[in-house]
Amino acid sequence: MTADGTGRLEAFSDGVFAIAMTLLVLDMKVPHDLPSGQTLARALVAQWPTYLAFATSFATILIMWVNHHRLFTHIGRGDDGLLFSNGLLLLGVVLVPFPTALVSEYLGRAGQKTAALIYNSTFIAIALCFNLLWRSASTNGRLLRADHDREAVRHITDSFRFGPLFYVIALLVGFFSVTASLAVSCALAIYYALPSRTAAAIGHARPGHSRRV
Amino acid sequence: MTADGTGRLEAFSDGVFAIAMTLLVLDMKVPHDLPSGQTLARALVAQWPTYLAFATSFATILIMWVNHHRLFTHIGRGDDGLLFSNGLLLLGVVLVPFPTALVSEYLGRAGQKTAALIYNSTFIAIALCFNLLWRSASTNGRLLRADHDREAVRHITDSFRFGPLFYVIALLVGFFSVTASLAVSCALAIYYALPSRTAAAIGHARPGHSRRV
Amino acid sequence: MTADGTGRLEAFSDGVFAIAMTLLVLDMKVPHDLPSGQTLARALVAQWPTYLAFATSFATILIMWVNHHRLFTHIGRGDDGLLFSNGLLLLGVVLVPFPTALVSEYLGRAGQKTAALIYNSTFIAIALCFNLLWRSASTNGRLLRADHDREAVRHITDSFRFGPLFYVIALLVGFFSVTASLAVSCALAIYYALPSRTAAAIGHARPGHSRRV
Amino acid sequence: MTADGTGRLEAFSDGVFAIAMTLLVLDMKVPHDLPSGQTLARALVAQWPTYLAFATSFATILIMWVNHHRLFTHIGRGDDGLLFSNGLLLLGVVLVPFPTALVSEYLGRAGQKTAALIYNSTFIAIALCFNLLWRSASTNGRLLRADHDREAVRHITDSFRFGPLFYVIALLVGFFSVTASLAVSCALAIYYALPSRTAAAIGHARPGHSRRV
Repeated sequence: MTADGTGRLEAFSDGVFAIAMTLLVLDMKVPHDLPSGQTLARALVAQWPTYLAFATSFATILIMWVNHHRLFTHIGRGDDGLLFSNGLLLLGVVLVPFPTALVSEYLGRAGQKTAALIYNSTFIAIALCFNLLWRSASTNGRLLRADHDREAVRHITDSFRFGPLFYVIALLVGFFSVTASLAVSCALAIYYALPSRTAAAIGHARPGHSRRV
Repeated sequence: MTADGTGRLEAFSDGVFAIAMTLLVLDMKVPHDLPSGQTLARALVAQWPTYLAFATSFATILIMWVNHHRLFTHIGRGDDGLLFSNGLLLLGVVLVPFPTALVSEYLGRAGQKTAALIYNSTFIAIALCFNLLWRSASTNGRLLRADHDREAVRHITDSFRFGPLFYVIALLVGFFSVTASLAVSCALAIYYALPSRTAAAIGHARPGHSRRV
Repeated sequence: MTADGTGRLEAFSDGVFAIAMTLLVLDMKVPHDLPSGQTLARALVAQWPTYLAFATSFATILIMWVNHHRLFTHIGRGDDGLLFSNGLLLLGVVLVPFPTALVSEYLGRAGQKTAALIYNSTFIAIALCFNLLWRSASTNGRLLRADHDREAVRHITDSFRFGPLFYVIALLVGFFSVTASLAVSCALAIYYALPSRTAAAIGHARPGHSRRV
Repeated sequence: MTADGTGRLEAFSDGVFAIAMTLLVLDMKVPHDLPSGQTLARALVAQWPTYLAFATSFATILIMWVNHHRLFTHIGRGDDGLLFSNGLLLLGVVLVPFPTALVSEYLGRAGQKTAALIYNSTFIAIALCFNLLWRSASTNGRLLRADHDREAVRHITDSFRFGPLFYVIALLVGFFSVTASLAVSCALAIYYALPSRTAAAIGHARPGHSRRV
């Protein structure tokens, strides 16, 4: 699809990210058969854990897509290892609606610790897959574009190193407070989103150069 | 994906628009276990609010896609701000099937005002996101193509300025008449669709130039 | 996405076709709670109308995609009219899972005529949309590639002219025999598939020329 | 989409693969109404056949995508035969969630042999479609890129020849042991994944040449 070698892999991944993100809405149920005396508004407000879980998962998948996109601005070629580590990452992404539905069903009820544990474990697994993908691409610069931005690459490598550790902390916090644990997960998503914000605008940094966004 | 810098963002957004649009059909339920004496035809006719809500939402998402596409014929580069304001817009798009299902379930019953309020609020939020996206791209022409059509850009900026206000009017109308409120929403969708119709055919305006449609 | 002007429209349409096609599988239900004495095999065989409806709809959407793809090898530019007639076509495509589910639920039971009528009407509507799309693109060759194959274009115009009429026949047959009516629909799908089969291989006809498939 | 003639076919197929893969998650049900005394964790563990079926089907669709992608690095042009044999393949891919749901519902219960038989038959059918697709493209090199890698092409032809036979063995094993039969299916998926792993990295083999991944 592009001459630089990873176009179809990116297009396929985009499809999976987009679908996983959109399927999240299927968990938002229209209240049926309101008990007498209850209004629709009140029935909808009572579903707040569903909205919280939806928003967190949507934001997380969006940020994962932004990161995936950022990595692939540096990756210039693919090999079978990249195809499979990317596949493992997509497995994680595809799974997200399931723990999301678990949290949205069990938050505030017996079973919420189990639900939060599975929710955070999914994100640890995805963070590990991102590390695997990035390592298989960037070690010795094997699959990077010949003209990749060395500093940006080092920056990504550094910010990824501690990712899974932070998610493990979120998971451990979950044994004490489920809400705090979900908050740490959100904070981590935002942390991953920040780095390049501070960096110059993509596509601006090297004006003589076409960058895909 | 394209050399001009927003190809992957557009492809990803296309995926989300396409899926949100297609998932709307899942709300159209096949009538089961017809009560004796009722025909399938009559059972289907009784579901008319479902078809109305489906058609309105489909048309709205389609027009949003057309607008998204139109904006990106002028946008030449992306940055993190654009990625996130586009992400916020996609959040709105992904949500559309939920208020649609609400309206289709509650139109003509207690709770219809709440449903219409949520339906119109979703479109206000999306109109605001379109403004945010366009501002973050067009202010000082930061992310626009070097050779963007200044008049078309001004035209878009003008037509967007009052969008959210009009949707707020639709919402306020909803406190008096739910049907009138939905009609205003439809009218607004059509209004957004019109501007460039009167303009010259895309890709025709500047014949020496390749335009993506 | 491509330099010739309809890349993003095609990519978006591909998404809608692909999703509508894939959602059809959601209608194939796993039998639950088998009554004692019944085997899974027998329960699955009893669902044959579901498989028939699935296969017909899948084949029809596939052939529609093939036709869409064929039209767009000749269309070189887009305008707002094309965007909206294509949108109307996609509305038809997105709807297909609903009449499919109707037929699969009601074939062989009271209500089957209504179901077949709606099923065939959907295809008449889609055939009309294909005509609208093609006319808006090919009249006076307005949106065709400068170097379009005049004979292939005339061929398509001819084969489309009578499409809706044939589907109306299929619909009328449905008042006498539902099965015969569905058979006519299948035959029409195959008829639309044939023309270019007899033509030379796409991309082969004009070897010096790149054709997208 | 690409100058080499199969871009849109690949993009459309990517969409179908991505959606079929992502829809698998809809089969993973959140346990509702836990009987008193049962924990969420135990209820989730009891669903293990669902996870097994999910993982096997996800891996299989991923590997089919990898193979599809690999074939199309050699295919340079399309014709109607390719469009339809690819369509038949996509029919198989789209169906995968249904036998997956069957196995996940019936594994370890009466009906598991029927479920495994259907599951393995789906993969035989898909393996046959891959053969059909590859034959229609590679016989006499008709649709291959002018500069295709002859050795890689021969390698694919050889590895495909015995594919359906192996799946028939998996199916026959199923009459004796359902678990062994599913294990053979997994082994086959991995076998199809291996060949090019041992080969040099895609895109690396011929450095002067751009390869899409």
